[in-house]
Amino acid sequence: MSKMLQESSVDGSGSRFTPLVVAELAPDTNQETIAWLLSRIRDRQQNGGDGDSFLSMAECQHIIKHELDTLRAKDETHVPGHDSAKLYPGKSIVRRLQSKGILIQIFPLHENEELKRLSFSWYKRVKLSLQPLDEIRHYYGEGQALYFGFLEYFTFALMPMALIGVPYYLFDWEDYDKYVIFAAFNLVWCTVILEFWKRCSASLAYRWGTLSRKKAFEEPRPGFHGVLGFNPVTGREEPVYPNVKRQLRVYLVSVPFVLLCLYVSLYIMMIYFLMEGWALSVHAEEPTFWTEVLLYIPSIIYAVVIEILNLIYRYAAEFLTEWENHRLESSYQNHLVLKVLVFNFFNCFASLFYIAFVMHDMALLRQSLATLLITSQILNQFMEAFLPYWLQRRRNKKMTRKVQKRKTLDEKQLPLIEQVRLEADMSTYLGTFDDYLELFLLFGYVSLFSCVYPLAAVLVVLNNITEVYSDAFKMCSVFKRPFSDPAANIGVWQLAFEAMSVIAVVTNCSLIGMSPQVKAYFQDSDQQLIFWTVAVEHTLLAVKFILAFLIPDVPKHIQIQLARLEYESLEALKKRTLFIRTENQSLSLSAEKTDQDKEYHTIYTFCEDGIRLLHH
Amino acid sequence: MSKMLQESSVDGSGSRFTPLVVAELAPDTNQETIAWLLSRIRDRQQNGGDGDSFLSMAECQHIIKHELDTLRAKDETHVPGHDSAKLYPGKSIVRRLQSKGILIQIFPLHENEELKRLSFSWYKRVKLSLQPLDEIRHYYGEGQALYFGFLEYFTFALMPMALIGVPYYLFDWEDYDKYVIFAAFNLVWCTVILEFWKRCSASLAYRWGTLSRKKAFEEPRPGFHGVLGFNPVTGREEPVYPNVKRQLRVYLVSVPFVLLCLYVSLYIMMIYFLMEGWALSVHAEEPTFWTEVLLYIPSIIYAVVIEILNLIYRYAAEFLTEWENHRLESSYQNHLVLKVLVFNFFNCFASLFYIAFVMHDMALLRQSLATLLITSQILNQFMEAFLPYWLQRRRNKKMTRKVQKRKTLDEKQLPLIEQVRLEADMSTYLGTFDDYLELFLLFGYVSLFSCVYPLAAVLVVLNNITEVYSDAFKMCSVFKRPFSDPAANIGVWQLAFEAMSVIAVVTNCSLIGMSPQVKAYFQDSDQQLIFWTVAVEHTLLAVKFILAFLIPDVPKHIQIQLARLEYESLEALKKRTLFIRTENQSLSLSAEKTDQDKEYHTIYTFCEDGIRLLHH
Repeated sequence: MSKMLQESSVDGSGSRFTPLVVAELAPDTNQETIAWLLSRIRDRQQNGGDGDSFLSMAECQHIIKHELDTLRAKDETHVPGHDSAKLYPGKSIVRRLQSKGILIQIFPLHENEELKRLSFSWYKRVKLSLQPLDEIRHYYGEGQALYFGFLEYFTFALMPMALIGVPYYLFDWEDYDKYVIFAAFNLVWCTVILEFWKRCSASLAYRWGTLSRKKAFEEPRPGFHGVLGFNPVTGREEPVYPNVKRQLRVYLVSVPFVLLCLYVSLYIMMIYFLMEGWALSVHAEEPTFWTEVLLYIPSIIYAVVIEILNLIYRYAAEFLTEWENHRLESSYQNHLVLKVLVFNFFNCFASLFYIAFVMHDMALLRQSLATLLITSQILNQFMEAFLPYWLQRRRNKKMTRKVQKRKTLDEKQLPLIEQVRLEADMSTYLGTFDDYLELFLLFGYVSLFSCVYPLAAVLVVLNNITEVYSDAFKMCSVFKRPFSDPAANIGVWQLAFEAMSVIAVVTNCSLIGMSPQVKAYFQDSDQQLIFWTVAVEHTLLAVKFILAFLIPDVPKHIQIQLARLEYESLEALKKRTLFIRTENQSLSLSAEKTDQDKEYHTIYTFCEDGIRLLHH
Repeated sequence: MSKMLQESSVDGSGSRFTPLVVAELAPDTNQETIAWLLSRIRDRQQNGGDGDSFLSMAECQHIIKHELDTLRAKDETHVPGHDSAKLYPGKSIVRRLQSKGILIQIFPLHENEELKRLSFSWYKRVKLSLQPLDEIRHYYGEGQALYFGFLEYFTFALMPMALIGVPYYLFDWEDYDKYVIFAAFNLVWCTVILEFWKRCSASLAYRWGTLSRKKAFEEPRPGFHGVLGFNPVTGREEPVYPNVKRQLRVYLVSVPFVLLCLYVSLYIMMIYFLMEGWALSVHAEEPTFWTEVLLYIPSIIYAVVIEILNLIYRYAAEFLTEWENHRLESSYQNHLVLKVLVFNFFNCFASLFYIAFVMHDMALLRQSLATLLITSQILNQFMEAFLPYWLQRRRNKKMTRKVQKRKTLDEKQLPLIEQVRLEADMSTYLGTFDDYLELFLLFGYVSLFSCVYPLAAVLVVLNNITEVYSDAFKMCSVFKRPFSDPAANIGVWQLAFEAMSVIAVVTNCSLIGMSPQVKAYFQDSDQQLIFWTVAVEHTLLAVKFILAFLIPDVPKHIQIQLARLEYESLEALKKRTLFIRTENQSLSLSAEKTDQDKEYHTIYTFCEDGIRLLHH
């Protein structure tokens, strides 16, 4: 286990150890600071060890990150060599170094051999097999692997829809009133796939050992600030920030801001409809090929504007959520996701809802949906894959030129110091947020309205396939290797997708109720029609919730495995307790009892023990 | 700690120990069997001890029950003295004895002194204070205490509605079109109280130490049968029953049976409407006082029939669920609760829904609701309190006469043997199922339709108050003391009440939409009216789910306490791990690793350790 703290501390030639994590310090850091930091890190490392055979590289890197993050000041009042960087007992050293700009970044190194193998089996050859999820997990950790697993699952789940969509398109079945069957299919589909994903995800997480993972205590996030106080849980001195103040910021600033943004988005939507009307009137006056093209222009412009708005809003949301000063990263993430989801949903789908349920114009809905979907896919692929690729190429060329000056031509492998330099300059991967968000919106297009434009599923499938390749490429060649994060599921996104599927039930039922076919059936009474639509919709929602309740989230055989594991550790504990008792050592292993809680506590062994394991 | 295995083994005079649990064996049991059973029980008891100061009596009794239930055969092939009672290694001895009728019953003894204190502070004096929940919990365990806590909470939650209901009744505001405000109030009310009950329940469970209780491994229920096979979890030999067979029984027999019962209930409802129509026509022909009374007769008869149907169905449901042969008690309970809830809901509310939404007759709805509610309350109180009380009195008298023959008159305290005999004859308390079911139906009457009959809340409050007293009386004087069951919440009933509150939102929205006031507002378009009703209803449902999501189930201060507890035990474990390491004992306390699961396991100490604690 090793950490390179500065380029100077790395011996560029034959290094005995496998480098795992790089911490880049500012170029002007004092030698005193470096010496202190090294001594503090080594303080913890009683004896080195190599965990390669036991833990995956990604796990080792995660553990090192955890250990660095929990490196705390003892009695230092400031960082040696930097009087302005104040410390107090219990303050995370790395966080202070980062916030003061002394520590520029910490990142894990790529392993070239493994990366080559992984990228070859992943995206470098065109193939019909599945993604190598286990290898992805081994290299990048569970969070990444689950994202790619979900992407793959989602693509396969779309296949039936795409297959039905193609004949609809080819044989021109889509005369806007045959969509009832398709809407009904949508309805069942979007409920079922989400339920089964939960089981898939549980199987993956079980295989990777994260399924019954306990959350470790969360540290305050780096940006969190406040006056010094006492943590009610640990009793440690740390910054505290009154919850009331945060709530005020959320409800008096953030909520009105989001509402304002929604209003702006609505306003722009209205401008789009004006443009649409104008284009239509021009085309109606004197129809030529060019006026036909003109019909698509407003939608394209609107789609581009939507993407730009989403982008700007994203930054604003990040700024606002940062300003709300959440103590925990998870709370920050929840508030950010909620803000972004609400706006993106509204921004992308408001016009479609308006066309469908206020204007009742199915032809326009179809055209608008197609333009929005295609334009946003093109824009996304460009922003996500080609742009970073091109930037990276330029950087790589510059770098290679520099490197080639120094090394002889027959040396195939870059010296370690050059690899570190090269990777330090690569872009930082910002997590799976944007990737999931894109999938969420695609899921929305497909589940909400694809019955009027069955080709949507086909487009999304094609998009997803290229997405797998471009994302894989990005992960392997464009970005710095990210720290792995152990995850048991896709977290808040499962909830987001489920909320979307509920909305899809309501939307599809309304679309069915509005279809000419159904209307013809209820010719005499509009009231009857609406009543039955609502009744059917309620029944479907009820069935959906009952289904979600009945289908176990974890497959049976895994439930049994988990129960067996628990049973065995219980039996083992019983035996040990007996053993200890006979040895006459009264370790208080059995029930603990406090005044407040008579519970026979659970004693946890956490990830932290993993560190020690690595040490001895 | 002691168990009395037969009356003969109890020395009637000055017994040194406090008797806790009674196990009644069949009168013709062989001495050989008794000797063997005693030796097997004593086998486990290495040394006696008294846990009074540490655990409550209810907890001690629970532990004895658990220990008896997990007393397993080693190499016995049959119960000594009963060749027909086969045993195999790992078979629960007590279950076999029970199934063969050798062991008639096991029950904990009342403690007369404590019972007197408890019943005095609970129901023997009329008072305005709250119920002594902590004392109830101490005597009967958490499951009972939570039921009484919920009953009390529910009564208080109904107070605002009752208070609004009284002026509605007094000033005759209830002209069937002013009920909009009341319906809107209902809507908010039933969502809010359930959310806050969760917090209350968490507070109580935290105080009693059951909040973060882990479920112990469930044993197969006594009635479960099947061919001998291997348990996939424990690897022990035990009866197994293929799940497919059980599913077939559920879907091919139970579900059709329930549907048939629903059909019968529907048929009877139709007969009720015929009777109702006939009474109405008689009254219309020649209105006298007697025809006025006649108007109420069909409803009363119908209410009685409903109660009878519920009772018969209840036995049928128990028989069917028993026949489905569920392996676990929890699975049996879930299937039983689902069957009973569906039928009871339909049976009690179908006629009201029909009157409200098909006949649109608000006057009849009101009359029907009132009659149903009052009749069922009277019947319930009679069946639940007076009948067992009267039976008990008769039994007691007989007993006392017998006892008095033997003992001298100045002896106030019954000898232990007489107390055991007396209590063995008392009825067995069958759990909180029926009590919760009754509350569930009352909650339904109030939340679904009370806007048309605001006095309903008042009636339910009155009923609940008498219910507290009659239930308390039953628990203390009519029934054998039940074994305590540690519970953290009201379990499946929370879900049932929440489902009812969702239905209440739909119902109240429809009632509002149908009210003359609202109809007058949308005079020109029925379509608009329905559309807005549905839109408002969907919004309310969405708000309801968001609220349920936002309000934390566990109050903040308890969350902090739990986190602190976890943190402290983690810190303690760290220290101990270090200590053990320095002592050079490589107890594998740190992370365990199996092939299947890389997780750093949690090591549990269960309730079972409590038994050992009691022993040494």
